[in-house]
Amino acid sequence: MTKRIITISREFGSGGRFIGEEVANKLGIKYYDKEIIGQIAKESGLAPEYIKENAELSPKKGIFAYAFTGRDITGKSVEDMVYEAQRKVILDLAEKEPCVIIGRNADYILKDRDDVLNVYIHGDMPEKIQRICKLHNTSEADAVKMINDIDKRRMTNYNFYTDQKWGKAANYTLCLNSSKLGYDKCESIIIECV
Amino acid sequence: MTKRIITISREFGSGGRFIGEEVANKLGIKYYDKEIIGQIAKESGLAPEYIKENAELSPKKGIFAYAFTGRDITGKSVEDMVYEAQRKVILDLAEKEPCVIIGRNADYILKDRDDVLNVYIHGDMPEKIQRICKLHNTSEADAVKMINDIDKRRMTNYNFYTDQKWGKAANYTLCLNSSKLGYDKCESIIIECV
Repeated sequence: MTKRIITISREFGSGGRFIGEEVANKLGIKYYDKEIIGQIAKESGLAPEYIKENAELSPKKGIFAYAFTGRDITGKSVEDMVYEAQRKVILDLAEKEPCVIIGRNADYILKDRDDVLNVYIHGDMPEKIQRICKLHNTSEADAVKMINDIDKRRMTNYNFYTDQKWGKAANYTLCLNSSKLGYDKCESIIIECV
Repeated sequence: MTKRIITISREFGSGGRFIGEEVANKLGIKYYDKEIIGQIAKESGLAPEYIKENAELSPKKGIFAYAFTGRDITGKSVEDMVYEAQRKVILDLAEKEPCVIIGRNADYILKDRDDVLNVYIHGDMPEKIQRICKLHNTSEADAVKMINDIDKRRMTNYNFYTDQKWGKAANYTLCLNSSKLGYDKCESIIIECV
């Protein structure tokens, strides 16, 4: 395997997390998504519940609200500290062993390594809605709200911390529409590219 | 083959045109890039030289300059007429036979068909510069200028006529970094997906 690390950025409801987990299983390598939360908590000294809510989705209300959040004596906000801890955990994981890392701007955090395959998974709205309704047992209207809200927060976080545009093809080695290609095909293409 | 038509959008210097031609050869289907120019000329009644210069790259100086170009009695500019002719030619080609179509917003023009695979090929700057220097026998500085100028014009044209953002992963089924994956791998992934 010439690529040791696979990062997967994904639209909410596109099945990106599931595809990443399947790829990790098939390659017999570690998979990190929620597993990282405990490590970020340890690194930052903050509660796992706080990390879970904030690590990938802050600044929650965009950069204006963010500009006025509490900061410590060095000018760092709590959100910056969480991000710093997340960054350190991801750099350490990549150093340690081959793995799949879901979200958390890992593509950008690992940009100086040449053994990383950056993947972006997106999908069509009808299929994403259907998936969210099934997984979260919710109405179509609520699924649409969840998709719009979570992707907006992921985008704001990504654009703020990376100075790149979330979802722009040029950031990733491989972008796949999981609704059009199917999950199996997405997995086989990713495996073919590592 | 469940997908009869392959559209390839590409950054200048990414080898997208070359990859498209190779895919067409391997699949034994038609390939359209400059070949379309004669048909657009016939359809629009304008000279092939004019089409060559304007069909994919107008409005040349952005939408403000575009707003003040000459228009006929119906309010259509010459550029609009070229685009209309191009649109008709691409719709007819897709109806007629399986093929690969390079650029010309074909992904958007064919959006109502379900037998189209939309691909976007991009690359890293050093590899793109190297390719342009070799193909056009030019200096690195001139290659950078060509890349920036041509991609800006392609982007302006795409964004103006499609109301989508050029290079946004969500527009395409498959986006591939040809510098990182190599041309052969790009070709095999595309063939695997049709």
